[in-house]
Amino acid sequence: MTQAIDRPLTQTLQSATFTNLKCKECGTTYEPAAKHVCEECFGPLEVTYDYDAIRRQVSRESIAAGPNSIWRYKAFLPVASDNPIDVGTGMTPLLKANRLARRLGLKELYIKNDAVNMPTLSFKDRVVSVALTRARELGFTTVSCASTGNLANSTAAIAAHAGLDCCVFIPSDLEAGKVLGTLIYDPTVMAVHGNYDQVNRLCSEVANTHGWGFVNINLRPYYSEGSKTLGFEVAEQLGWELPDHIVAPLASGSLYGKIYKGFNELVKTGLVEEKHVRFSGAQAEGCSPISQAFKEGRDFITPVKPNTIAKSIAIGNPADGIYALEIAKKTNGNIEDVTDAEIVEGMKLLAETEGIFTETAGGTTIAVLKKLAEAGKINSDERTVAYITGNGLKTQEAVSGSAGEPLFIDPKLDSFERAWERANTLNRLDWQQTQV
Amino acid sequence: MTQAIDRPLTQTLQSATFTNLKCKECGTTYEPAAKHVCEECFGPLEVTYDYDAIRRQVSRESIAAGPNSIWRYKAFLPVASDNPIDVGTGMTPLLKANRLARRLGLKELYIKNDAVNMPTLSFKDRVVSVALTRARELGFTTVSCASTGNLANSTAAIAAHAGLDCCVFIPSDLEAGKVLGTLIYDPTVMAVHGNYDQVNRLCSEVANTHGWGFVNINLRPYYSEGSKTLGFEVAEQLGWELPDHIVAPLASGSLYGKIYKGFNELVKTGLVEEKHVRFSGAQAEGCSPISQAFKEGRDFITPVKPNTIAKSIAIGNPADGIYALEIAKKTNGNIEDVTDAEIVEGMKLLAETEGIFTETAGGTTIAVLKKLAEAGKINSDERTVAYITGNGLKTQEAVSGSAGEPLFIDPKLDSFERAWERANTLNRLDWQQTQV
Repeated sequence: MTQAIDRPLTQTLQSATFTNLKCKECGTTYEPAAKHVCEECFGPLEVTYDYDAIRRQVSRESIAAGPNSIWRYKAFLPVASDNPIDVGTGMTPLLKANRLARRLGLKELYIKNDAVNMPTLSFKDRVVSVALTRARELGFTTVSCASTGNLANSTAAIAAHAGLDCCVFIPSDLEAGKVLGTLIYDPTVMAVHGNYDQVNRLCSEVANTHGWGFVNINLRPYYSEGSKTLGFEVAEQLGWELPDHIVAPLASGSLYGKIYKGFNELVKTGLVEEKHVRFSGAQAEGCSPISQAFKEGRDFITPVKPNTIAKSIAIGNPADGIYALEIAKKTNGNIEDVTDAEIVEGMKLLAETEGIFTETAGGTTIAVLKKLAEAGKINSDERTVAYITGNGLKTQEAVSGSAGEPLFIDPKLDSFERAWERANTLNRLDWQQTQV
Repeated sequence: MTQAIDRPLTQTLQSATFTNLKCKECGTTYEPAAKHVCEECFGPLEVTYDYDAIRRQVSRESIAAGPNSIWRYKAFLPVASDNPIDVGTGMTPLLKANRLARRLGLKELYIKNDAVNMPTLSFKDRVVSVALTRARELGFTTVSCASTGNLANSTAAIAAHAGLDCCVFIPSDLEAGKVLGTLIYDPTVMAVHGNYDQVNRLCSEVANTHGWGFVNINLRPYYSEGSKTLGFEVAEQLGWELPDHIVAPLASGSLYGKIYKGFNELVKTGLVEEKHVRFSGAQAEGCSPISQAFKEGRDFITPVKPNTIAKSIAIGNPADGIYALEIAKKTNGNIEDVTDAEIVEGMKLLAETEGIFTETAGGTTIAVLKKLAEAGKINSDERTVAYITGNGLKTQEAVSGSAGEPLFIDPKLDSFERAWERANTLNRLDWQQTQV
């Protein structure tokens, strides 16, 4: 039943720049198969590259001349194929957020907007595009994942386009938009009575028995590399410069670490100049194991049971939590958490000032950005980038009660005029109240 | 109260390539102010350009070196400012749809995917980016629109980013996602008890009395030009060639006509070679005034009262319907309509084969594409492009009952194995039934 696991590579690696899998803890190396845990020490495996080969292959110009997607950075990604699965993923806007910056007292703020990533409106499209390309290279015909929603959307959609069979696992209490946004692609959907950490444990068992390509389990070393493109794109979009400070959400901690790795790889290959970038991270108070460890000065994570509206980042036992802690400390960043009420305010603040409707995870990032700016933990003249990772249409429940109501009118001018007068009176009262 | 209408231009037009407004019916010209109806004959006004100036300004290379948004085609758009409102709108993927093509018996099919347009996931972001840039040039501080939902989302979002005051008008029975997807940006929302045509009439009255910039009324000549970018991008993404056949949804008929205008402008300025492109259009049976006229060989539109789930294209009295009829006839295209059940099937078909979750309007386009392909009205060897104009997360009601259900399981391996066995048995039965 384990036919696809550890099978020999079916395609040559001649143009590939990645070399091996290597344990992050003990350094043992393995050939690049479907494997994510070190046999020696149970540490996580990571992809290694031949950076000299990358340096010879790419330049700022060759990247700019590449596809308008993450695949312009193919030399930095662990795929061998010349025909990766390209559904337009990546190259999302880096929006200069002047109105939000003014509200927060910052001088130069950017939003990296993966709420409009393609095809399923979250950063997960990046990691899944890489994972399914690699899954195909390794001979898998069925792909799977353990997901809090966005990953299920993305895996089901990109598998549909690529013609791969797909079975996804989600907690049974997810938001309606995330469930429908998976079912529509016609995969098998397993809704598990339990939280994400329970879903994840079940999937590890299934991965061992069914020979499927689980994007975030046995394919995790390849999958997670996709997040580096969030570092590459920001640097390219800033004119091949690194920012001074970034704020990103923390779920497993993987995204955060891979942005860091992405920046470092650009320095290593001579594409940008070295710079000290501060890394700050955002969690929801109701699931803040990394933030708690950071505040208590611990270098280990104590797992928690999640209880927050920010379900997409509600991972109580984060696999890469300790690496996130290390990076925050090393770069003089901060890890902070915010309440569910602050998360909703963060969603509304971003929408009102910049016209971006993000999901609860993005609300968490903006609320933490605000908290850090107000506490002086982001300097007002730091060039700051906040990473928005998902779309608000998927978590409508979170704000549907607090975004206000339309004014209902008849299709007549006088009905409109009365409503308009009423709206203006209310606005004036609001305004007067804020002056008191 | 009409301060902003017909006011003198506040910015110079030195770098602009557009020249005037001109009546499509009688040819009377006007200076490029906020005006949409001819004073002589009540015909619609359209923007005119100095094509020699455009030809001098642009080349394939200069466009490719431009921003990764609709503004790479700025020379073809009616704005004077060097700093248009750029929120990353446009340059959405043109996806080669091999799996869908096979299902429909076509050889070369592409999906132009504006379901992931930025910032609000519909083609309306294109027209609104242009309209609000022009509104600002003309000195408007409050912007507005009559909308079936997507336009309200887009106007509210981009106005928020640009710091313009905003009041939008929608029918009171819109889908929840479209209402929340407007309210979140904190505009004034007027929900009108009536259909779109009644909303539109009310807005014409308000435009006359309040001095606001209504993107699709007094700013309509500028606004509608934004849709030309759907023509420009497809040509550029096909390697500066025109397709053989396009299929687009018909609401007011404006989008369809502007893709046609866009293709022609590329020919006129020497950017692509001339080619006969067939234009086919898609309507929902429950609101098919243009399709009815086409089938009956009429050159006039008889307004209808809409009754369809495809609310975003449910315009019973389409302003540009007669021009759409002309183009379909002239290019040897077809205009066809489909039932609500076919629309849902179209949404599911696109999701299952290509991983794109579109709203009801996109389901309409795919269902019509299928109908035309099956009737031999699209030749199998025509290079065909179908335009998908909005995102399925905004119209979840349409498919939530028919996209299937997850399998609910406990977080235990044996619970999963039983469910998986059951799912496979059901799939085999399904498969056997289709073989009978």
